[in-house]
Amino acid sequence: MEFTVVGAGMAGAFLALALGRQGHTVTVYDRRPDPRTSANAVTSMNLGLSRRGLDALDRVGLLEEVTRETVPMRGRMLHGTDGALRFSAYGEGGILAIQRQDLSAVLVAAADRVPGVRFVFDTRCTGVDRDLPSVSFVDGSGNALVVKPDVVVGADGAFSTVRRFLHHDQRAEFTQSYLEWGWRELRIPAAPDGSHRMADDVFHLWPRGDTMMFAHPNRDGSFTCSCVLPFHGPEGFDSLTTAADVEALFRKHFPDVLELVPDLGEDFLSRPTFNLVTVSTSPWTHEGKAVLIGDACHAVYPFLAQGMNSAFEDALELADSLAHHPTDTAAALSRYYTRRKPNTDALATMSRHNFAELRDTVRSPAVRLERACDTLLEKLLARRWMPLHTMVTNTTIPYAQAQERATRQHRLLKLAALTTLAAAGTVVHHFRRRQ
Amino acid sequence: MEFTVVGAGMAGAFLALALGRQGHTVTVYDRRPDPRTSANAVTSMNLGLSRRGLDALDRVGLLEEVTRETVPMRGRMLHGTDGALRFSAYGEGGILAIQRQDLSAVLVAAADRVPGVRFVFDTRCTGVDRDLPSVSFVDGSGNALVVKPDVVVGADGAFSTVRRFLHHDQRAEFTQSYLEWGWRELRIPAAPDGSHRMADDVFHLWPRGDTMMFAHPNRDGSFTCSCVLPFHGPEGFDSLTTAADVEALFRKHFPDVLELVPDLGEDFLSRPTFNLVTVSTSPWTHEGKAVLIGDACHAVYPFLAQGMNSAFEDALELADSLAHHPTDTAAALSRYYTRRKPNTDALATMSRHNFAELRDTVRSPAVRLERACDTLLEKLLARRWMPLHTMVTNTTIPYAQAQERATRQHRLLKLAALTTLAAAGTVVHHFRRRQ
Repeated sequence: MEFTVVGAGMAGAFLALALGRQGHTVTVYDRRPDPRTSANAVTSMNLGLSRRGLDALDRVGLLEEVTRETVPMRGRMLHGTDGALRFSAYGEGGILAIQRQDLSAVLVAAADRVPGVRFVFDTRCTGVDRDLPSVSFVDGSGNALVVKPDVVVGADGAFSTVRRFLHHDQRAEFTQSYLEWGWRELRIPAAPDGSHRMADDVFHLWPRGDTMMFAHPNRDGSFTCSCVLPFHGPEGFDSLTTAADVEALFRKHFPDVLELVPDLGEDFLSRPTFNLVTVSTSPWTHEGKAVLIGDACHAVYPFLAQGMNSAFEDALELADSLAHHPTDTAAALSRYYTRRKPNTDALATMSRHNFAELRDTVRSPAVRLERACDTLLEKLLARRWMPLHTMVTNTTIPYAQAQERATRQHRLLKLAALTTLAAAGTVVHHFRRRQ
Repeated sequence: MEFTVVGAGMAGAFLALALGRQGHTVTVYDRRPDPRTSANAVTSMNLGLSRRGLDALDRVGLLEEVTRETVPMRGRMLHGTDGALRFSAYGEGGILAIQRQDLSAVLVAAADRVPGVRFVFDTRCTGVDRDLPSVSFVDGSGNALVVKPDVVVGADGAFSTVRRFLHHDQRAEFTQSYLEWGWRELRIPAAPDGSHRMADDVFHLWPRGDTMMFAHPNRDGSFTCSCVLPFHGPEGFDSLTTAADVEALFRKHFPDVLELVPDLGEDFLSRPTFNLVTVSTSPWTHEGKAVLIGDACHAVYPFLAQGMNSAFEDALELADSLAHHPTDTAAALSRYYTRRKPNTDALATMSRHNFAELRDTVRSPAVRLERACDTLLEKLLARRWMPLHTMVTNTTIPYAQAQERATRQHRLLKLAALTTLAAAGTVVHHFRRRQ
């Protein structure tokens, strides 16, 4: 079958690879330049490959090639305002840090090697006729182009053009919701000898409630930092108008970073601010003719680091569904939607909660205590008890199941805590009476 | 000040009237033809004017003129499947039924009489530059037109063009959600002597769970019926493909209507199906330059009959806010938003619940019992206890306050029921022991 994929990002390039390996003809269009030869504009935080992503890469034979580009992180390192460090391990496997540009280039190169797969860059999608289907593009020189594949795939991100045409005049459910926080990237350069200036095998986190920062190690000795601030308020982007403002904020919250980034204030002010958006929608498909994957149908907040991992899962589920219904594409797309939608809805909810939890880590002893109990029980009960973060990161348990199991565990934890409290009360009471 | 209002529907025409009376210059553009001289395409159910709407009309001096076009409904009449009728009164004031076309024509005529107010029909908005601000239009002959007012107002409905340009590239919250039900209009013609074929002073309701119908009396002896069905399933629009299918459905659920509409089956099949959408969004404003009112910022399900009433409230609040901050339009628009948003959010929630309740009226004895208690308490406690429907329909208590008070009452009702049950149990127990 012939597919037109709009978007050569993580979702689109990976899907092209998966479909190409099944013998389909796939042409992928992207309005941006080729990531193999040109530095894309940064439009996402550094990426964290966890179990789901690694399994997916393994299934398309790319695990080894991609792993070479990564830096393993075996846990997270919390930085206190006094410079104190506290480490907590991720559990088996850990997470592999990779720069978006590097992974993008590997995926495109790998897909491009598959017969029947072709990439066209610098070419913007301008419209979709979902019923033919046909897709219109304009290339970098302004020339119009119309293609008529069997299926058009929208892998064109949170502000998807394909989605707009797929939903036009339909009873489409659609929600977009922004955080009142945004983020800016910073870079901690390598030391003169090329080594990392902080621990190079962990995810660094500076949780400060309404303000936070985190950093991924890169292979060249640098770190990519994401600084998350509210837009408004005394410590918001709006209020940071001079280098001195920025440096005062860093001196207060991230003093150890201030020393590691040259000209931090000016650098910070010169960077763009990125938004954080959740998109939830349905339908994802139009008959057997059009389908959405990745951020185009379920953009989530990035703090659980599952955007790319879930996009790979989408692509494999779509490829599997097409293989499952080789002669009925409408049934295949419908199967794909039915199997993915509950899971990506669960992911969106978990990603929202995770952001709240990240903020509260610093504020609420109750959150810390609950997390400590959770981790303790994981150790005591081995496989029978898994914290949510473990299920999301270190397993391929479908997101909806992980969420449900975590809810059950949370209830048990509460019950156990209450029972323990009651038992302790009884014991105390008993001993008091004996005195 | 100079205003460009996009949309001459209920919200836009009423706002023009209110602003014109304050001495502002207002030009209202609409893509549709003039309602005074041309029958608009029907795009909404018949309207019900309740306390809020009547108060608003009174404030702009239109109460008497509009009332002449209405038919008073003093309560609702439930039609059973066996033709049995059950009446329940609305309480003081009742609701006035009016045809959209009639009200629209009166509003436009009244606004047009105010110096400084002007209407331009058959002219479609194609774009807004929110920062100038400027608004682009194309008229019926295809001629382009650009105007540069002080403020542009989007009164252009649930699928607002102004909103799209106001939100472009902003961190805008946006949700649109459709019911899995749609509706079609039917008309019960007047009897040969011009009289109504059913009671002419009530709102007629046929609640059947997943299927329902209601009818408003018109001044010419006819009734406008809205038939609400699911899109899918055995009794959904999708399944009604022949006149016989339609007539079978009516014979089962609405037998008394079958006799009153000539060629009901064919008529029903020739009518368009309308969707039911809720739209929730923010921001509603852009600096002191652009603002949304009515469905453009808060489309709700029509079953509480508050769409138009709340749009009038919007318009008055906006006019009041402009009068409150005569030299600071940004502050005026911000005041308007802050005062209206919680109320229209509450209205959206109540409208959603109301649909569920309408469906359950027929199914759940508990819902009926609770409503009966609610009404009883209203009678016993006079002004101190008001059912939600009374607060929404017969008062101008802000929607958010009404919702909050109803929640409090609901909790009290439950508590009272439980206390009564416990007391009754104790009494029974006491008497048993004496025996």
